[in-house]
Amino acid sequence: MKALFFDGNKAEYREDLPVPVPAEGQSLIRVLLANVCSTDREILKGYRPDFKGIMGHEFVGEVADSSDASLVGRLVVGELNEGCGRCLYCRTGREKHCLDRKVIGMSKDGCFAEYMTLATHLLHVVPDGLPPEKAVFAEPLAAALEITEQVKMDSSANAAVIGDGRLGFMCAQVLALTGVDLTVIGHHPDKLRMFKPYAKTRLSSDYIGSVPGSGAVLPAYRALTADECFEYVVEASGAPEGFDLAMNIVRKMGTIILKSTYAGKKELDMSLIPVNEITVVGSRCGPFGPALKLLAEGRVSFPDVELYDLKDWQKAFGSGAFKAGFDFR
Amino acid sequence: MKALFFDGNKAEYREDLPVPVPAEGQSLIRVLLANVCSTDREILKGYRPDFKGIMGHEFVGEVADSSDASLVGRLVVGELNEGCGRCLYCRTGREKHCLDRKVIGMSKDGCFAEYMTLATHLLHVVPDGLPPEKAVFAEPLAAALEITEQVKMDSSANAAVIGDGRLGFMCAQVLALTGVDLTVIGHHPDKLRMFKPYAKTRLSSDYIGSVPGSGAVLPAYRALTADECFEYVVEASGAPEGFDLAMNIVRKMGTIILKSTYAGKKELDMSLIPVNEITVVGSRCGPFGPALKLLAEGRVSFPDVELYDLKDWQKAFGSGAFKAGFDFR
Repeated sequence: MKALFFDGNKAEYREDLPVPVPAEGQSLIRVLLANVCSTDREILKGYRPDFKGIMGHEFVGEVADSSDASLVGRLVVGELNEGCGRCLYCRTGREKHCLDRKVIGMSKDGCFAEYMTLATHLLHVVPDGLPPEKAVFAEPLAAALEITEQVKMDSSANAAVIGDGRLGFMCAQVLALTGVDLTVIGHHPDKLRMFKPYAKTRLSSDYIGSVPGSGAVLPAYRALTADECFEYVVEASGAPEGFDLAMNIVRKMGTIILKSTYAGKKELDMSLIPVNEITVVGSRCGPFGPALKLLAEGRVSFPDVELYDLKDWQKAFGSGAFKAGFDFR
Repeated sequence: MKALFFDGNKAEYREDLPVPVPAEGQSLIRVLLANVCSTDREILKGYRPDFKGIMGHEFVGEVADSSDASLVGRLVVGELNEGCGRCLYCRTGREKHCLDRKVIGMSKDGCFAEYMTLATHLLHVVPDGLPPEKAVFAEPLAAALEITEQVKMDSSANAAVIGDGRLGFMCAQVLALTGVDLTVIGHHPDKLRMFKPYAKTRLSSDYIGSVPGSGAVLPAYRALTADECFEYVVEASGAPEGFDLAMNIVRKMGTIILKSTYAGKKELDMSLIPVNEITVVGSRCGPFGPALKLLAEGRVSFPDVELYDLKDWQKAFGSGAFKAGFDFR
């Protein structure tokens, strides 16, 4: 079959890979659509040096064979993390944090292929009428929904999303559904325009004050009044500076939800956290069920994905995160 | 009157200071007992360079004059932070975070004096039968109670307190009241002994693995199983290394409550927070009412305070944090 294979150093388009055979409790899925996520690009830069295998983790497919016969022929999406099923994390609803988990496209063959296997209990049937082009957003939308799973948001409060990329776009859509007074902060006036139907928008530079003459690496932030600050700040910029901005715009006793992951360490004045009683909530993968429901009900919307042939993977990886996907139909 | 005055550089015992006159909405308090907190010692080291005035913020006193006549003659303790009363923080129950707040012993004359003034609404009447020697712990105990105010703790879970000093002692007493399976981790076998009636104890060194040969400043932590880790970790060590240990012993999707404040920046691998979905809750001053109630009911206990004359303040500051106080009776 056709697949995009990562050999530990580089990706390679191949047509000679065998169709995988599902193990006990697994399903075989014929992939219809798969989206490129920035994590896939990070893998090419060395984010997962120990991984060798088929890339990709965002997909829609049709069940070709399954440990649950009722699923055969159904359209499905699937969760990434397959746990051991026995450890404390697997037994307490935290399979995605199992220390021995396999993650598709990161430590187990993924979805940039004509066929893939996945534990059957990780599959979610796509609601009738939801086209694959929209269902493929279930995984990143679920990650955004993790915010409202973790944090009980006061809908009378205000909230900010830092980041106008795909992650920020997902998070802003989810936050808008709570009824909070929402502001999206980003670098790009053209991207910020997308948020205008449901959010105020601000340029990050609006929060920068005079740059100190001391040669400091970080810009100086303006001193803000309590009214200018936010009860909830979602950091989805993907850049270390995003956290500094978050600390500057969050209210005392407010909450920062940290979605961004980036390599490398960061210097932090830790005392600001207890002194200002800030809560920092790390947030990653989320619930697929409500994501599919919201997509099917049309309560969230995403730009169309531009679909490529798998052999043109370099074009797909080179294009904007929003529009790159592979079509296997 | 007698007072311990900080001139911006050093503390000085004086006997020539005038008895303060309460402003509108304030009370005049005759101080009976006052405890020395490590924050007072930090002020001598330069923690509050802009402050000039009478030091101290942990006290028990008798109301000598008040905007509320019913309080005169009553035994009281008092909160530290006097807000402006008008800003967003003051209007939303966050007076202690008012940007224009006055803090006794830090930006307003404090309690190391025969008399002090304080906003009447910050006073709490000491329950009948609770002696001043115990009531004086209301402030640090309230700070520990802030943990259970902020975090809904699952009493079936396990929890660790890092730090065997006074802050750790307060936090451990409060956590023990929730019924959680409690472990206290510290450096000092003699101090850890105090916790044995209600907590398991571990030496911090138990968590250190082989020190890497790379000349790294930080020790290497042992890789722990999920079972060895904790759902809640209270970081009350007062040292930057405490946070590294907390990150190593907290479970995925667990919560670190950060009580320690220390000057200076710290390097942190921020991606560990979202990837492991850790929540970090900064925690500071807490509710006085329940603190007094628990003290009066004898549900918490603290070692006796050794009382000094104010003129012997250097001896008091030089002794262990637990036992230093001033007697004005």
